[in-house]
Amino acid sequence: MVDDKSVTMTHHLGVDAGGTSTRAVVLDSHGRALGYGRSGSGNPISAGPAVAATSLRAATAQALAGAGLRGSVISTTAVAMAGGSSVTDDPDVADSIRDALVSTGVTAGVSIEKDLLALYFSGTPQPDGYALVSGTGAAAVRVRGGEVEAVCDGLGWLLGDDGSGFWIGREMARAVAADLDGRGPATALTPLLLAATASATGQKTEVSLDPGSVEPQHPSSDQNPLLREIVKHVYALRPVQLAQYAPLAFEAMSAHDAVAENIVNRAGQALADTLAAVVIPGLDGPLVVGGSVLVNRQAVRDIVGGVQPHSPPAPAGEARAGRPLVIVPDGLVGAAVLALRNAGLPVDTGVFDTVTRSVRRLR
Amino acid sequence: MVDDKSVTMTHHLGVDAGGTSTRAVVLDSHGRALGYGRSGSGNPISAGPAVAATSLRAATAQALAGAGLRGSVISTTAVAMAGGSSVTDDPDVADSIRDALVSTGVTAGVSIEKDLLALYFSGTPQPDGYALVSGTGAAAVRVRGGEVEAVCDGLGWLLGDDGSGFWIGREMARAVAADLDGRGPATALTPLLLAATASATGQKTEVSLDPGSVEPQHPSSDQNPLLREIVKHVYALRPVQLAQYAPLAFEAMSAHDAVAENIVNRAGQALADTLAAVVIPGLDGPLVVGGSVLVNRQAVRDIVGGVQPHSPPAPAGEARAGRPLVIVPDGLVGAAVLALRNAGLPVDTGVFDTVTRSVRRLR
Repeated sequence: MVDDKSVTMTHHLGVDAGGTSTRAVVLDSHGRALGYGRSGSGNPISAGPAVAATSLRAATAQALAGAGLRGSVISTTAVAMAGGSSVTDDPDVADSIRDALVSTGVTAGVSIEKDLLALYFSGTPQPDGYALVSGTGAAAVRVRGGEVEAVCDGLGWLLGDDGSGFWIGREMARAVAADLDGRGPATALTPLLLAATASATGQKTEVSLDPGSVEPQHPSSDQNPLLREIVKHVYALRPVQLAQYAPLAFEAMSAHDAVAENIVNRAGQALADTLAAVVIPGLDGPLVVGGSVLVNRQAVRDIVGGVQPHSPPAPAGEARAGRPLVIVPDGLVGAAVLALRNAGLPVDTGVFDTVTRSVRRLR
Repeated sequence: MVDDKSVTMTHHLGVDAGGTSTRAVVLDSHGRALGYGRSGSGNPISAGPAVAATSLRAATAQALAGAGLRGSVISTTAVAMAGGSSVTDDPDVADSIRDALVSTGVTAGVSIEKDLLALYFSGTPQPDGYALVSGTGAAAVRVRGGEVEAVCDGLGWLLGDDGSGFWIGREMARAVAADLDGRGPATALTPLLLAATASATGQKTEVSLDPGSVEPQHPSSDQNPLLREIVKHVYALRPVQLAQYAPLAFEAMSAHDAVAENIVNRAGQALADTLAAVVIPGLDGPLVVGGSVLVNRQAVRDIVGGVQPHSPPAPAGEARAGRPLVIVPDGLVGAAVLALRNAGLPVDTGVFDTVTRSVRRLR
């Protein structure tokens, strides 16, 4: 793989440091992926600088080993992270990232990039367009000239992340609580969440998708013991962990549960609003989508694609019709594209296809 | 005060141990309040058993001193707390409550009562009726034969407390974030919250109630610095502390801000649903309301009083029309009533009026 070097051949490193896992790829200046590595959480905010540094080092070392290269030959490195270069405002974080890379021999041309920009460039080489992500969190960006020009949401679970996995998980937990409490309608989400929390605590429960199968115990008792279980379970989690229950909403929706349908529809509408807030007339280009809620759920993509933007500053829908929608699994290809771009290498459709195909082959 | 004892005279202690403050009253068997005390948080869950015990001891000692009595003459004590007797399932909490009372000389006939039952009996001596509270949290109870027969909500900030001060504070913070983010409509809540957070951090900001006075900076910049301030401020709080911003929603509503009106209306509707879930036909009686959102806000009370219950198991509104609504400041009178009831003393309208009037005179 490395014997086709020419005198102009350079090597580059792209790293997608996500909250769940970190992925790294080493590639040559033609965009050919030569080595791939993968490790744990690389987010210094949620996992802490030390854990993130360990993940960054492990994924990078694995990618270099796969390519049969030393870190010292890498001329540019792009590390994609939530927050982008603002995370390195914290000197501890900046030091831990630099030290992790130095320990693998990588020292030259390191840049920290926004995860949403890497997500965007995982779907297209075009310098202008949009990206929308809904995983644990949710956000949209407008990209112009290869840079993020505007961002919407990404404000975290308490203030924003509308339509995210957390948002769906919280709405479903609240709907289950209201059902068991007698305040809200019966829903198939209730037996599903009870089964999920029981299996999380090692109990065994029979589950039926019939919404009436778990009777609210009002008015006959002071408090429903099933409700007590849910309360105990949920408050023992960190709030963002509610995102793990988002798939239950889609499961209940496919059984035509009205409460679940309502939650998923509102999630799609919220994501459409977030996207609409960054869409402007005159900037056309693809829409790249990522994150488990958008990648795995046609239903949510349909709402995002089908709803006309209605929030300012978006125009009356004209910029959305017919926009190509590209689904990407993560920001790894985009991190590689950014490493090439940062070296001054043009990433045209040909190079982009080489990156995409060769990264896919390695992982 | 103590020289009118007869051979049948006994003495009783009522304590309302709330999250913000603890209030205690010593009374005689006619319901006359003889001494009053007040101290800090008495909630062993939120403040910790040690702080709660200190508050309980201080308020009780002060009430006994005011009455000129020793703790050993108290024959029954009712301590009202969130969770009621279930809080003493934790042996540490049970020990700390008992030790605090013993240190004041109080040893006989201590019962731990639900705060909502004490709130109910602060408004009426009738054994059947309803109570609805919306302070930091929110809940409703149905009382029959002097006992709580059904409870709805009170499930905490993440799973429930719909229509509470926290709920209003969170909805307003999210609305401000959406405004600054370009996803949501402009709202007068934005300058109000910015001024509140700036004054919390010692900055000075000019504020106008004009919703357009704080321009969202999309699409021209990557992220609005005002939004960054809000994000930083809110995530530095414990989530329930968002309840402190609920009054801003009422302030903006009185300036006819549509976003604030929508939040307050939904809060009122949520509280009406919570109440409706415990209302049943055939159990008439007063509705006692408490908590800052219901005590201070006619607008919310109007919605609660005006909306017909529509959630099961409530009937089609017939049980609500014309129900007397009693507003109470806290659960202190009710804790005193429970102490008398627990001694087997009948609390009729005359005794209840004596308790209410004499407690009011002392504090």
